[in-house]
Amino acid sequence: VIELYRYKLTIAYDGTNYAGWQIQQGVITVQSELERALNTLAGKLIRVYGSGRTDQGVHARGQTAHLDLPHKMPPSDLRRAMNALLKPDIRVMNARLAAKDFHARNNVKIKEYRYFIWNSQIMPPFMRYYKTHIKHNLDVSDMRKAALFLLGKKDFAAFAANPKYKLATTIRHIYSITIRKHGSDIVIIIKGNGFLYKMVRSISGFLIRVGRKSVPAEITGNIITSKKRTALVPTAPPQGLFLWKVQY
Amino acid sequence: VIELYRYKLTIAYDGTNYAGWQIQQGVITVQSELERALNTLAGKLIRVYGSGRTDQGVHARGQTAHLDLPHKMPPSDLRRAMNALLKPDIRVMNARLAAKDFHARNNVKIKEYRYFIWNSQIMPPFMRYYKTHIKHNLDVSDMRKAALFLLGKKDFAAFAANPKYKLATTIRHIYSITIRKHGSDIVIIIKGNGFLYKMVRSISGFLIRVGRKSVPAEITGNIITSKKRTALVPTAPPQGLFLWKVQY
Repeated sequence: VIELYRYKLTIAYDGTNYAGWQIQQGVITVQSELERALNTLAGKLIRVYGSGRTDQGVHARGQTAHLDLPHKMPPSDLRRAMNALLKPDIRVMNARLAAKDFHARNNVKIKEYRYFIWNSQIMPPFMRYYKTHIKHNLDVSDMRKAALFLLGKKDFAAFAANPKYKLATTIRHIYSITIRKHGSDIVIIIKGNGFLYKMVRSISGFLIRVGRKSVPAEITGNIITSKKRTALVPTAPPQGLFLWKVQY
Repeated sequence: VIELYRYKLTIAYDGTNYAGWQIQQGVITVQSELERALNTLAGKLIRVYGSGRTDQGVHARGQTAHLDLPHKMPPSDLRRAMNALLKPDIRVMNARLAAKDFHARNNVKIKEYRYFIWNSQIMPPFMRYYKTHIKHNLDVSDMRKAALFLLGKKDFAAFAANPKYKLATTIRHIYSITIRKHGSDIVIIIKGNGFLYKMVRSISGFLIRVGRKSVPAEITGNIITSKKRTALVPTAPPQGLFLWKVQY
């Protein structure tokens, strides 16, 4: 029996040039880049298990993952070696030894996403890959009103896209939605126990609509109870979205 | 006689994908992109005169320029039309009508540059094109000590690279150098009446050396009076540098 050593990684990545997190045939993804680095390092396939997927163009400040190594290695050496083998748009921010039964996806307690909006006529070029540009003035108090309807344990079928895989349930628990405004910057901070496919972008897209006054905040409850995705809920573009933090 | 209308532009750009500001044969520059947009707009060559050049990979938050149009046009229309014709990594942030004798380079009173450093072991991927990564801990108080020697009207030949063009003088006046530290972020803010070729990157490269304790702050005066560029003054990489503001 080979003893394996489990590690937990915290990973930041710029999703601009990747076809999302998940390994897929014929495209370069964040997971495939991490496994390529580990293959070089260990001389064999080492699987990386993330806390969940992110879509093409979506970023992560604090994605988490676990992996097993056949040899014990100081976590800071693993971190340094991986960063030396990765392109600078993926960084292992932290590595640590984890319990043998730690699981990056199954053990998640809270996931936090942040959606960044630049709400002004002209967007400085430096943020074009990291914020969504909305020229139309957004009413943040209306967005906050709508957000209240989304809190709690609910069926979020109306705020999800059809996944390619079959889901056991579309019930999720949203713990909090905070909307911060500072000058032209608006950030939607969403915490929950988990999220459906494109759920954060759907909620953000809907809240932007409410902020533009093209949909009244009061309709939010009806949309949830309908459990039907409609044109009232657009998917906001990926570049504004960051997987911010995963708590265990 | 054709009457011409002079406009002043404030321009932000991400220098990553450009061979600097200045038009050159065979490469794409910020100036060539602006003139391309104006050519489409006016149907003829409209020259753009910047406050000065920036090198390949250097950014601008507030570059300024002037140009003459044969027809009077509301400045906000000019701004909007140019932005529609430019790629999102160059933005006209502001346009206004200027006096007929306004000259973006000759009338400069104060130029402000900012050099951004990320001083920590690992750099999050989102800042890789906009900050310079220095792993070695920098002593900011030593950097401030060295900066004091650089203030005032001085011959800065030792802090410039040889330009391709002949200079009348290498005397410049530095009004202030402020070094801010906030967590892992360090910013060097330099204001002066003008700067020699690669002067801000040379000063930044030198101050980084001082901060690393590889050169004592007290040597700064001797370097200035030597008027000779030496290996003690390296050129810091371009991606940390922003032309921040030009005042008239």
